[in-house]
Amino acid sequence: MKSPFISINGGVCAPRGFLGAGVSAGIKHSGKRDLALLISEKLCQTAGTFTTNSAKAAPVLYCLKHVRRDLARGVIANSGNANAGTGARGLRDSELTAAMVAGTLAVHGYPGHRDQYLVCSTGRIGVFLPMSKIRRGIHAAAHALTRNDHAVTEAIMTTDTFPKRIAVEFRMGGKTVRIGGMAKGAGMIEPGMSATGRRPPLPLHATMLCFLTTDAAISPAMQQACLNEAIGQSFNRITVDGDMSTNDTVLFFANGLAENRPPRKGSSDLRAFQAALNHVTLELAKMMVRDGEGISRVVTLRVRGAATAADAELAIRAIGNSSLVKTSWCGGDPNWGRILDAIGYSGARLDPTRLDISYNGIPLVRKGLQISKNLSKVRQLVQKTHFSIECDLRLGKFETILYTTDLTEKYVELNKGE
Amino acid sequence: MKSPFISINGGVCAPRGFLGAGVSAGIKHSGKRDLALLISEKLCQTAGTFTTNSAKAAPVLYCLKHVRRDLARGVIANSGNANAGTGARGLRDSELTAAMVAGTLAVHGYPGHRDQYLVCSTGRIGVFLPMSKIRRGIHAAAHALTRNDHAVTEAIMTTDTFPKRIAVEFRMGGKTVRIGGMAKGAGMIEPGMSATGRRPPLPLHATMLCFLTTDAAISPAMQQACLNEAIGQSFNRITVDGDMSTNDTVLFFANGLAENRPPRKGSSDLRAFQAALNHVTLELAKMMVRDGEGISRVVTLRVRGAATAADAELAIRAIGNSSLVKTSWCGGDPNWGRILDAIGYSGARLDPTRLDISYNGIPLVRKGLQISKNLSKVRQLVQKTHFSIECDLRLGKFETILYTTDLTEKYVELNKGE
Repeated sequence: MKSPFISINGGVCAPRGFLGAGVSAGIKHSGKRDLALLISEKLCQTAGTFTTNSAKAAPVLYCLKHVRRDLARGVIANSGNANAGTGARGLRDSELTAAMVAGTLAVHGYPGHRDQYLVCSTGRIGVFLPMSKIRRGIHAAAHALTRNDHAVTEAIMTTDTFPKRIAVEFRMGGKTVRIGGMAKGAGMIEPGMSATGRRPPLPLHATMLCFLTTDAAISPAMQQACLNEAIGQSFNRITVDGDMSTNDTVLFFANGLAENRPPRKGSSDLRAFQAALNHVTLELAKMMVRDGEGISRVVTLRVRGAATAADAELAIRAIGNSSLVKTSWCGGDPNWGRILDAIGYSGARLDPTRLDISYNGIPLVRKGLQISKNLSKVRQLVQKTHFSIECDLRLGKFETILYTTDLTEKYVELNKGE
Repeated sequence: MKSPFISINGGVCAPRGFLGAGVSAGIKHSGKRDLALLISEKLCQTAGTFTTNSAKAAPVLYCLKHVRRDLARGVIANSGNANAGTGARGLRDSELTAAMVAGTLAVHGYPGHRDQYLVCSTGRIGVFLPMSKIRRGIHAAAHALTRNDHAVTEAIMTTDTFPKRIAVEFRMGGKTVRIGGMAKGAGMIEPGMSATGRRPPLPLHATMLCFLTTDAAISPAMQQACLNEAIGQSFNRITVDGDMSTNDTVLFFANGLAENRPPRKGSSDLRAFQAALNHVTLELAKMMVRDGEGISRVVTLRVRGAATAADAELAIRAIGNSSLVKTSWCGGDPNWGRILDAIGYSGARLDPTRLDISYNGIPLVRKGLQISKNLSKVRQLVQKTHFSIECDLRLGKFETILYTTDLTEKYVELNKGE
């Protein structure tokens, strides 16, 4: 099958009409860029997904109120401070941030209201935002707006070691349209997001932030539905450390500047749009895993043959978040007994005498017993930086996937400091 | 209130009629002691609690079959190999081990049947037991039986850095009776045991092994009920790394040699027995936490004010098992935001604007906001090796406790090797 899209250079500013800026406002002690501003020349229709954590940060509560309700000009995001655990003052600070952006951009030719700006934060929890620094930062950012997305992408990084961006182009409704994206991740990564911030039916568990842009015209309901599907197969399928953040947010801006005919339900145009969005989000999610804090290995886990979808989810999350499984990967040790152990305590139905486990397709466990002749091949394999593990419970037809990492001394070192 | 018991020297051999031996059978490559034999001169009535992991090790399946059904002479336990993930052959090996002990001890003046011996294993999963080494070890152990519990206690250690033993003495039914105990822990520690090995109503998550002995006479039903209560407030209330083992086992042997009048339901004698057993198991559980793999801090967590018992449990397990909370403790950082985050994703009901958090009784968070004037005091406090944290959700009347540890570079180092 011919891919319905092609990859192009750039990220969030690849679609028509988007501008970005990233400046150093002095929120981070390091002096690195810490304030990102992303706007659209034309007002956007916006979709979003948000952490299901009950201790939602102030900017998440702010976005939940304004996303989908109002047309948006763009988003302001700071790194270095999560504005979480900051109560009513935190919420006022998010509102004030949006108001400052609206006021500043009005004099730069973008008249508009506070509610047209969404707000995101990432960084330490429990500290109030330094509002005077943010005010100065917003002025600097408004002057720095550009079609180059380099600075805006850098400004949301925290412990990320590389900026994460991607863009694709495809035909839809008679026109060429584009989708672009940027993201940050690294630690506190096991997103479990929903469009309402309410818990999805399955028990899921970063701060991860992701901004997506498109110049496509698409109905608001379809935009949100496509985003939900895309997030369900990307960010909600990764874990670094099993800690779901108070701040996880994905925002998706569509400004319609491509002037395509909006796709209809069930159309090949909609399928092309979904395929492109799935690709953009999955690639960003995989970059996030690859850049997990201190990690040395990336593991693609598959659980098949579960009795129920909930069982598949319980089993795969237990494996992907087990300290003992993750440290064994760090050591390049195919210690499948720890995988068996994790499935055993996950709560998923398990018959140990049926379990098959294979590594990159090489069977190591069949019906619960080790195939010793394959041990040395698998041992070499788990020394690599990327490998996959498949566990077949052989109890039913449900399956799932999770992109995860090892647990290293460096992760502990990075996170024990303040 | 006067304590109903006094502490005495020793461990499992402190009660009348118990003998122990610990030898090196060559199962561990290090040549350290790895085979423990504990027997009673008089046949014992036995109670037990077992891991609720669905991938139960062969010796756990063996014990579940024989405990409570048969009078027992004692237990044989090996370290260095878990005999888990070993299928039908593993089960036959456990049976064979018991048969070898019965055969060997018969010639040492303890005639009896295979079913009179319980079997435990701890170590790597997925490797068959070296039965010829075990046979030779059993012969050596039978010759080494002694009233000194030093060797038997050492022989069940894996990554433990010190042997764990305790004994108490108290009056009951007109006689002086004793309870002794020994345990091993260190890694794969978040026991969730029940008398049947079936899952308890609350979702709980080492290999930990614990053997308890008493010379008291007590009815079998009361012995098991007292053990269930003791385990519920001790081993099932600790976590090192959140990984519930395939092998967790507590066995409690009562030989009646004290010749006391058995306690009656609701009697002060029964309360004295329970108090003594609670003390023995809680002290052993705390030693296990203090000796957690690579740990540098021990934290006593309390959650109060939860809306339900299940919520209290979800919240406290999320905090006690969060990689980010545990690494912040390692760094001596009172990063309460990570605690807020963990409660938030735990699934427990939470109103962040009501949450109070205190450290050793010093309030640091009130109604979800930091009391900044106490920050430096708390910062000094979390540099210590032991401290307590109390989270009050202020939503209801349910509370619980969990003894836990930090997560260190050394933990990763210890567990990444084979």
